[in-house]
Amino acid sequence: MSGYFDSISPLTFDPDSEGLAFRHYDPDQMVMGKRMEDQLRFAVAYWHSFGWEGGDPFGGRTFERPWFPADTMELAIMRADAAFDFFRILGVPFFCFHDHDVRPEGDSLAVSRDRLNRIADIFAEKMANGGPRLLWGTANLFTNRRYMAGAATNPDPDVFAYAAATVRDCLEVTHRLDGENYVLWGGREGYETLLNTDPGQELDHMGRFLSLVVEHKHKIGFKGAILLEPKPQEPTKHQYDYDVATVYGFLKRYGLENEVKLNIEQGHAILAGHSFEHELAMANALGIFGSVDMNRNDYQSGWDTDQFPNNVPEIALAYYEILKAGGFASGGTNFDARLRRQSLDPVDLVAAHAGAMDVCARGLKVAAAMLEDDKLEAARRARYAGWQRPEAQAMLGAGSSLESIADKAMAQGLDPQPVSGRQEILENLVNRYV
Amino acid sequence: MSGYFDSISPLTFDPDSEGLAFRHYDPDQMVMGKRMEDQLRFAVAYWHSFGWEGGDPFGGRTFERPWFPADTMELAIMRADAAFDFFRILGVPFFCFHDHDVRPEGDSLAVSRDRLNRIADIFAEKMANGGPRLLWGTANLFTNRRYMAGAATNPDPDVFAYAAATVRDCLEVTHRLDGENYVLWGGREGYETLLNTDPGQELDHMGRFLSLVVEHKHKIGFKGAILLEPKPQEPTKHQYDYDVATVYGFLKRYGLENEVKLNIEQGHAILAGHSFEHELAMANALGIFGSVDMNRNDYQSGWDTDQFPNNVPEIALAYYEILKAGGFASGGTNFDARLRRQSLDPVDLVAAHAGAMDVCARGLKVAAAMLEDDKLEAARRARYAGWQRPEAQAMLGAGSSLESIADKAMAQGLDPQPVSGRQEILENLVNRYV
Amino acid sequence: MSGYFDSISPLTFDPDSEGLAFRHYDPDQMVMGKRMEDQLRFAVAYWHSFGWEGGDPFGGRTFERPWFPADTMELAIMRADAAFDFFRILGVPFFCFHDHDVRPEGDSLAVSRDRLNRIADIFAEKMANGGPRLLWGTANLFTNRRYMAGAATNPDPDVFAYAAATVRDCLEVTHRLDGENYVLWGGREGYETLLNTDPGQELDHMGRFLSLVVEHKHKIGFKGAILLEPKPQEPTKHQYDYDVATVYGFLKRYGLENEVKLNIEQGHAILAGHSFEHELAMANALGIFGSVDMNRNDYQSGWDTDQFPNNVPEIALAYYEILKAGGFASGGTNFDARLRRQSLDPVDLVAAHAGAMDVCARGLKVAAAMLEDDKLEAARRARYAGWQRPEAQAMLGAGSSLESIADKAMAQGLDPQPVSGRQEILENLVNRYV
Amino acid sequence: MSGYFDSISPLTFDPDSEGLAFRHYDPDQMVMGKRMEDQLRFAVAYWHSFGWEGGDPFGGRTFERPWFPADTMELAIMRADAAFDFFRILGVPFFCFHDHDVRPEGDSLAVSRDRLNRIADIFAEKMANGGPRLLWGTANLFTNRRYMAGAATNPDPDVFAYAAATVRDCLEVTHRLDGENYVLWGGREGYETLLNTDPGQELDHMGRFLSLVVEHKHKIGFKGAILLEPKPQEPTKHQYDYDVATVYGFLKRYGLENEVKLNIEQGHAILAGHSFEHELAMANALGIFGSVDMNRNDYQSGWDTDQFPNNVPEIALAYYEILKAGGFASGGTNFDARLRRQSLDPVDLVAAHAGAMDVCARGLKVAAAMLEDDKLEAARRARYAGWQRPEAQAMLGAGSSLESIADKAMAQGLDPQPVSGRQEILENLVNRYV
Repeated sequence: MSGYFDSISPLTFDPDSEGLAFRHYDPDQMVMGKRMEDQLRFAVAYWHSFGWEGGDPFGGRTFERPWFPADTMELAIMRADAAFDFFRILGVPFFCFHDHDVRPEGDSLAVSRDRLNRIADIFAEKMANGGPRLLWGTANLFTNRRYMAGAATNPDPDVFAYAAATVRDCLEVTHRLDGENYVLWGGREGYETLLNTDPGQELDHMGRFLSLVVEHKHKIGFKGAILLEPKPQEPTKHQYDYDVATVYGFLKRYGLENEVKLNIEQGHAILAGHSFEHELAMANALGIFGSVDMNRNDYQSGWDTDQFPNNVPEIALAYYEILKAGGFASGGTNFDARLRRQSLDPVDLVAAHAGAMDVCARGLKVAAAMLEDDKLEAARRARYAGWQRPEAQAMLGAGSSLESIADKAMAQGLDPQPVSGRQEILENLVNRYV
Repeated sequence: MSGYFDSISPLTFDPDSEGLAFRHYDPDQMVMGKRMEDQLRFAVAYWHSFGWEGGDPFGGRTFERPWFPADTMELAIMRADAAFDFFRILGVPFFCFHDHDVRPEGDSLAVSRDRLNRIADIFAEKMANGGPRLLWGTANLFTNRRYMAGAATNPDPDVFAYAAATVRDCLEVTHRLDGENYVLWGGREGYETLLNTDPGQELDHMGRFLSLVVEHKHKIGFKGAILLEPKPQEPTKHQYDYDVATVYGFLKRYGLENEVKLNIEQGHAILAGHSFEHELAMANALGIFGSVDMNRNDYQSGWDTDQFPNNVPEIALAYYEILKAGGFASGGTNFDARLRRQSLDPVDLVAAHAGAMDVCARGLKVAAAMLEDDKLEAARRARYAGWQRPEAQAMLGAGSSLESIADKAMAQGLDPQPVSGRQEILENLVNRYV
Repeated sequence: MSGYFDSISPLTFDPDSEGLAFRHYDPDQMVMGKRMEDQLRFAVAYWHSFGWEGGDPFGGRTFERPWFPADTMELAIMRADAAFDFFRILGVPFFCFHDHDVRPEGDSLAVSRDRLNRIADIFAEKMANGGPRLLWGTANLFTNRRYMAGAATNPDPDVFAYAAATVRDCLEVTHRLDGENYVLWGGREGYETLLNTDPGQELDHMGRFLSLVVEHKHKIGFKGAILLEPKPQEPTKHQYDYDVATVYGFLKRYGLENEVKLNIEQGHAILAGHSFEHELAMANALGIFGSVDMNRNDYQSGWDTDQFPNNVPEIALAYYEILKAGGFASGGTNFDARLRRQSLDPVDLVAAHAGAMDVCARGLKVAAAMLEDDKLEAARRARYAGWQRPEAQAMLGAGSSLESIADKAMAQGLDPQPVSGRQEILENLVNRYV
Repeated sequence: MSGYFDSISPLTFDPDSEGLAFRHYDPDQMVMGKRMEDQLRFAVAYWHSFGWEGGDPFGGRTFERPWFPADTMELAIMRADAAFDFFRILGVPFFCFHDHDVRPEGDSLAVSRDRLNRIADIFAEKMANGGPRLLWGTANLFTNRRYMAGAATNPDPDVFAYAAATVRDCLEVTHRLDGENYVLWGGREGYETLLNTDPGQELDHMGRFLSLVVEHKHKIGFKGAILLEPKPQEPTKHQYDYDVATVYGFLKRYGLENEVKLNIEQGHAILAGHSFEHELAMANALGIFGSVDMNRNDYQSGWDTDQFPNNVPEIALAYYEILKAGGFASGGTNFDARLRRQSLDPVDLVAAHAGAMDVCARGLKVAAAMLEDDKLEAARRARYAGWQRPEAQAMLGAGSSLESIADKAMAQGLDPQPVSGRQEILENLVNRYV
């Protein structure tokens, strides 16, 4: 017990509460055949909630947490205590971490690994005693200056090796803690300037690195999913894992499309010029949907703002795509979100998560209602119904050719007439559920 | 002879001219072992220069061309006369066209085809009499309201068939005119709202359509390249051929990565959030570089501005990537650029192209000098030199594993030290050539 | 009676309807002391709903309205009949129009004026017979090619004069029809390239033009407000009326800040990089809030998408600022929104407006509840409460100086401590009302 | 002498050098009647070059400077020694600093002031011994957490007072060091969320603060200019000093438009959606042009990238506007630019500045040639020539009215015909100088 959150009681579902409570998130409520908790699979992100100090490019730490600067094991343990107190207050079923969030880095790979294992022991005990499960673990391959020019894509092969050792340790710790997934985010896998970069070679190295990770997963018997997290840029000018479609091509290039899925972040989707539901729908269409980071970006700020979700209609459309993809398998809803740097107090951290969980619960319920009513899907099926006709299917089959299709079209004197796409009516329909 | 450009004489290379002339573009100057004309392979875009009327979303036609509205074959022929007069004035070796640019659409596929063939006869004669060659032909599958919800991706299979017939005719005319490539731009292959769209089904249809085109190309013996042209959005909210990396994934998905290459437009690159050189470098790395549309977009306008290139340093970096890709094979430099709608006069059209050709010539010469000097490439090779070491290569080879790499890294006590990336020094180096 | 909307009955308030009805907009419901209709003051935009043909930069007309192309007075009258039928179906209290929307332009100013007056007679009769009132009239100074380089800011003084004559006529017609406001949107008052532009001279001409309009308003006894409508760009690269803050500076420069207010559009706010509520709050702070165009822009499309509003949380924040500004005086909620070009049918037009009206009604009710509860405002007042202290007020008063304030701060050994800004808690609070 | 730059000799003008030298910047070359040094008035920014550690939001310090972390006076003096060594190597005539860059902040205002004065004594001696002059001083009112919610606009009046004391000291030190300007950049004068903000009150406080500064300047006899630096956002979501036009309105509102001018940064212009030349032209048109920060932003990164300028055509257009404004009076060309964080070495810092100085020198020479040739200006004057006619001038004068202008236009049967704007031809013309 850290004492840091002592003034705040565990939250309960209380729709009429005027205080700090869940008004919409009721873990046991059944939604499409599952408990809401099992549909949403919420996770807290260790780094933002317990590691981030409130700095921005123009100012330093604003938060005063007793465990900062967390550069000793004692402080790291104090932070772990606070984190698990916090998990208990929220009642979340999962958390996520990087190695870098949970232990101070050592002077050598060996020391860093040892510290990671010591913290993992503490985690394991807390998890066994009613703490949350691990949604995913990951390695931070971007903060230390050794990674300034990339990890797997670094021009220096020693950095590739260093990163490999780091991921090996993090993947094994994740496995030991029964993590449900392992994530790789390539924040420095990209370039600052093409003038000094060989993108083809770097892509090959990144493909090789990922193959090594996948092989090792199988070797150690880790059953969780390997997830890549797309982001277009920031910190680098261009990151190779730009968006869902780009990562799909990368996986296909290196034969990994059946081994790796995606962790999709709303904020990164927006930075890439897409809506969140677009990225989810594309991942589903391409068979690589895995998990989500549920943190919005300001549409009008060009950097990663990592805000807690607060717009129910948007979130409803996201869960609609998730439910259409069959819901989460190993994935979940991770709040990779930061407090605004002026939100200084413990209660801000609790309330931000509680509000976000309520927004997600509302979104999920809306999405489920829309899916169960089937009105949207019925309209969609009707729009494509013509493709069910045998002669339409024939065009897609092996026996047809451009010539046969064209000759038939000319012979028939085809003159297809457009029909309304009904966009506003469908938007109105969605608004009836929100 | 149309008479429309009678006041303007054919342009010549005259570096000291104060009038309308090429100051930098000298077709016969040798650049990296080829005549400049053969390196640059300039093409004029029929649609912008002879079809576009100067309208924008807030105002209609500003240009007064005698062939407007070009809705009869007589006017279409007048337009063709003017176009070939213009080609002669510029001395360009190539032009490009859509079916829709060159003939009024008929009431049926048959009438449209007949008109296209009649215009093609006229083109063939003009081409035989000293006119330019055809860089590429293409079908307009976006202007007519039948395509409002897509061509290959339309929910109505009759539209798919109609588009197939149209592409068949355009591909065959392109073949007849000895076109060096055939282009598909999917301006309506995308969606306006996900609410009424099945992106997975639409992608499958688009993949099928492209396969049909590729098969037909081989059937008729067309030796040119099939090129896709990426663009992220506009007209639709999202277009499937978003950017180079996205199209690569699409081609891989449908097994077409060895059959299809890309026509990359600077303006579309910018709309997708990339630099032009990024898109060129990625296409080269992925083995799908084909041709370019050389028209810039205003970085600060969110729609397709299609302006003539005018920034030599930018263009130099683009040709640098093109030369690194081996230069153009079947591709070329097509000016898919529009006059500003206030540039009303024939001389504006000539001067815009002449200025653009000079900018490209300067860019090409800068690029060639940088490549021949090898300073940039030497710096790049030096940066990755560590990967030539046997133990580095071993990590990329089949015998290594995450474990073996990690164990070795730990045993060695690796602590890789970063070295300067020299970005500003390389930028300065480039500026010594411009 | 046009017959065009015959299949659609006038809409009623029916919260449980499964069909075409208002589920939230109840004109007679009282909100903050006024009927909802009088708070919202809805207006239909004549141009988008009856003039726009469904074209975009890559395709032409998709809508088939019997009055298109509306190039004769007969067709213009058919359009007016349909428009007033439509107003009756929606039961909106207002409409808005440009001269260009309602009559075909003539060969001369005199013919155009005559046609405008003939249509105005028809409008007057329809308005007297139960039709809506006129929220505002305006002149289209951007479609005709004479305005390609600006109206008031045109390099040709004859265009300035032509525009003056046009505005005179439109302002007088607006006055005759008891319009509540007169709007000027300067879509061509800006530049395409600085290279041929003298922005200082153009601003002076634009200031002069606006002064002439204000003087004429007083001369003819028009009691409505003169409103400027900001937009940053499109059609031009840069428009002088960029955003609220820019227009404020312009009005101050020409001494018009007490004569002119603003018509603020959500879509234009977004294109300028602002939220809608930002622009409303700034206009209120600067004393120039007038009216709104309620049509959203896609945050991720860089052109004017003019979509119907559909996000209730966003609209609630907008009406919150409007209510804080005292609600509408002469202004109202104009739907300057277009159907998507695939929404072909009459029912699409009705449903789009009905959905938008419901979204606004919901937003208004949320905003009113938040304001009446006063929780948000109480938090805001508490945050600034320190400024009510006499020594704080003294710093703002004439007797203080930098030196006196600084000396006192040093003497006191000031060390101010930050307090939480509570952003997430306030966002959660808003979500309790939505 | 710090020893840090010992391996690098002072740079000289040597156009044929293959090494580290100026190839274009020749301080003594005359350009439009002044020495190039006196036209360009280069300044080095103390903070980026000697304070910035190479961190970004995803990683910490990459630079290893012996004076980091500069948290003691000894280290601060070591830094000053290195800085003045660097100034000497470049031969720049000016530098700029914040209080925060040059001394560690103390526990109280008094200690901070004392330290600032001690450093200023050291600066004064170095400046007297051949060091550069001070282009401007400024106070850092954004890094310390006390300013997280603003300085002049903070809800806590004690922060206003603290900021006032800080600016008093910085202004007086700037005066003592014969600074030519004093700059205020309001990085925290804005808001993170409107929900907790009263923008009208905050603007009033900001106006009051600026008035206090202006009064104090006069009181102490500081003859330099007070400059505001616009930036639209980052760090805050919205900053009140958004862009040139916005700041103009602010100055007008508080009656300061004759007392305050602007320091305009290319990067900030781009973040605000404008070109650099736009902001310069607007400032000139509005009479508030002061100085420039010459550091570009990546057009495609949404945060402040602060890169050294490297595109000559762009810089030429910027100096063209500066020369049209009469050139710099008290202002100059400050490189508010950072090395990329991978550019680790002393030589990177020197080369980055040298390259930037050469780019500016080239831009200035191009601009001067264009202005002296007068071709661009002649074209511009011709475009507006119609406004010199007496009847055109009459429309701008007091005797005219909307009615008189309109009546005359109708009587004349005006039908103005558009003429070409010649944008491409003018762009080509510019390219003849670059």
